[in-house]
Amino acid sequence: MASWFSRRRPPVVVPRLKPRGERSLSTRVDLGEITPELLPYLGQAALVQMLAFETYSGIVRGVSSLAAKEAVSQSAGAALARYQGLIAEIRRRGDDPISTMQPFAEMCAAFRAVITGADWRESLLAASVAFGLLDDFFIRLAEGLPGDFGPRCAQLLSSDAGRDATVRLLQEAIAEDPPLASQLAMWGRRLVGDTLLVARSALHLSDNSEDDEQHIEPVLTELIAAHSRRMDELGLTA
Amino acid sequence: MASWFSRRRPPVVVPRLKPRGERSLSTRVDLGEITPELLPYLGQAALVQMLAFETYSGIVRGVSSLAAKEAVSQSAGAALARYQGLIAEIRRRGDDPISTMQPFAEMCAAFRAVITGADWRESLLAASVAFGLLDDFFIRLAEGLPGDFGPRCAQLLSSDAGRDATVRLLQEAIAEDPPLASQLAMWGRRLVGDTLLVARSALHLSDNSEDDEQHIEPVLTELIAAHSRRMDELGLTA
Repeated sequence: MASWFSRRRPPVVVPRLKPRGERSLSTRVDLGEITPELLPYLGQAALVQMLAFETYSGIVRGVSSLAAKEAVSQSAGAALARYQGLIAEIRRRGDDPISTMQPFAEMCAAFRAVITGADWRESLLAASVAFGLLDDFFIRLAEGLPGDFGPRCAQLLSSDAGRDATVRLLQEAIAEDPPLASQLAMWGRRLVGDTLLVARSALHLSDNSEDDEQHIEPVLTELIAAHSRRMDELGLTA
Repeated sequence: MASWFSRRRPPVVVPRLKPRGERSLSTRVDLGEITPELLPYLGQAALVQMLAFETYSGIVRGVSSLAAKEAVSQSAGAALARYQGLIAEIRRRGDDPISTMQPFAEMCAAFRAVITGADWRESLLAASVAFGLLDDFFIRLAEGLPGDFGPRCAQLLSSDAGRDATVRLLQEAIAEDPPLASQLAMWGRRLVGDTLLVARSALHLSDNSEDDEQHIEPVLTELIAAHSRRMDELGLTA
């Protein structure tokens, strides 16, 4: 688990994360100092989307119901579109997408194992929790990117096509099998720490850990608040 | 294997299938009589695209090279876009996509087992052979559809985004491992019969089998000619 996470002070003011789709351009916290360089940002963000695509499409392949395939394929398609958009940004810079993503391959492979559930319902909740949180994180981090990359990346990542269908499918699964609710709630809680570790690995940290925490802290609080709202939507306790 | 297939007369004139992307509106053979009703056509064509999406995305998940993931994800995305387009046509008619596709679920599940290769290279060739052939088939069949559904479906299915990347990847795999060429050529040959059976299952056949064969025959000849050209492109003997 995330050892740095226990250092978190209890939040006093919980800043509201703007709803997705509405670009957050406010600068409550200056993220410039902890924002990674553009290229690592694009490489990691793209590979996270590829992993989201692989996760959702693996669920499509694993379920037998056509209705479930139809619902989850929308999220798979949305993740692929975000991946392709980020790849296009890398190419636009004249860089090679593959070598830009390569440094994050090991981390993504390890994270894939973490978010693989015992059945499709756990895997779908995991995808929803992990990629919901990571999308929010990379949207927030985009504010610190140079030039017009920030707004463009934020807009790219803000498309949440497919999310409604996934939420409905999980709600139906829980309605059909009520004990699933507590199982998924517990599983969701386990995933948050590991997902925040992936997020944290993207940050450009200085040697002054107190300074860093001051910057990271409010962002984590926002991310967790947004995560809790997503769990609420499913009727699950975060 | 396809028993009807052995009844095929040796082709005398091999009609050229128009390159994909260029809609074939000629009526060398009147397909009206063997074209299925619109709704079964849309249901089966959509489910075939879902299977293509599942197959390509399964390969993306199975390979570890980011370059291969990038290449094959393009084909996965193209299949998903075609699926979504066909689903939209079903909705446009006011029909339910799930119940429209349901009658073909068993056939697709069985066909999935047929096209699963021993490794990602076999699976990728299988996808390329099977869905290349089926796409051509449904494009050709679209000519017999009522109203403007035909041209719209043909255009939808004619997008072959991702094909170049898949071909390059297979060519590279063969260059790296020359004995793979004969293995893939043999595997490709095995798949053609089963794929044509799936195609044939879509046709609306009368009780007069001689009449039917007269209609089906030239279409099969076209499909096989286009298949041979695709194998040629890979340096494989059809």
